[in-house]
Amino acid sequence: MRSGELLYDEELLRSELLSIVPPGYKIRPLSIHDYKKGLMECLESLTVIGNVTEQMFVERFLKMKSKGSYYVTVVVDEVKDKIVATGTLFNEFKFVRSCGTVGHIEDIAVHKDYQGKKLGAIIINNLKNIAIKIQCYKITLNCNNDNIRFYEKCGFSLKDNQMTLYLNGTQKL
Amino acid sequence: MRSGELLYDEELLRSELLSIVPPGYKIRPLSIHDYKKGLMECLESLTVIGNVTEQMFVERFLKMKSKGSYYVTVVVDEVKDKIVATGTLFNEFKFVRSCGTVGHIEDIAVHKDYQGKKLGAIIINNLKNIAIKIQCYKITLNCNNDNIRFYEKCGFSLKDNQMTLYLNGTQKL
Repeated sequence: MRSGELLYDEELLRSELLSIVPPGYKIRPLSIHDYKKGLMECLESLTVIGNVTEQMFVERFLKMKSKGSYYVTVVVDEVKDKIVATGTLFNEFKFVRSCGTVGHIEDIAVHKDYQGKKLGAIIINNLKNIAIKIQCYKITLNCNNDNIRFYEKCGFSLKDNQMTLYLNGTQKL
Repeated sequence: MRSGELLYDEELLRSELLSIVPPGYKIRPLSIHDYKKGLMECLESLTVIGNVTEQMFVERFLKMKSKGSYYVTVVVDEVKDKIVATGTLFNEFKFVRSCGTVGHIEDIAVHKDYQGKKLGAIIINNLKNIAIKIQCYKITLNCNNDNIRFYEKCGFSLKDNQMTLYLNGTQKL
């Protein structure tokens, strides 16, 4: 896969942690050619996907790439050439903390047939490494009560409460 | 103030809600000339500011502006020409929810001498209006237990837990 087709520089994934990806799997940045590779099926376990056409996927990919702030990462089953886990890191620029940068983790999802293989933890650890390399001073994420223990094992601590407001008649999930 | 000096298009603040800003105060986007106007003193009530020189402020402002995703909004005491409240909305582009957009609210702060004047709620309501105009399907923020009631009054509901991981030896606050 050519580097221009990837959402971010694959070099950011180089580390000793890569060795913990199980045989038969590969971790890489999202590619512009991934529409039919199963990303949406992974994300379905999280929330409403809605209608995402190939054109919408490509346009959103290019918008994310143009911002230079999105690190959507996928684990691929190499035999089936299928995305089986995904997670997003994006960085937020602040004035506080000497104009510091915060990494936000969003949309961690593992395909239902591939759970129990530690693929979620592998995604998190790699996003954590990227956050260090792009010089975030902290990483933050929101999770429900059932996932607190998982994120504690990944090194996170409970801090505050997430509050949300749904707009334009969108249904809460 | 010229529009090119502002972080985002001031038109996004036009609405009937503007009428609730108390006399003697003005709400507007952050300006590139705001370094000496008291933004950092407001933010000091939240977390560590660190060393932010005027050059760092300007560079960070320009980075935020180039991303086109940051809506840092300030309330100014017009007599003193001083920033007395601030809040940030930024938008995150997703694949879920038909390639939806989430608004994140961060760094809501009111100068200690100006608390109790509803300036925080004015900032939140204006950021909420911007989120609707830029077509976010939801707004999300994190807060400590003491601020839950305030955000409930602003229309938010408790959803999940925030978890954080501090990197590179940064101290938690």
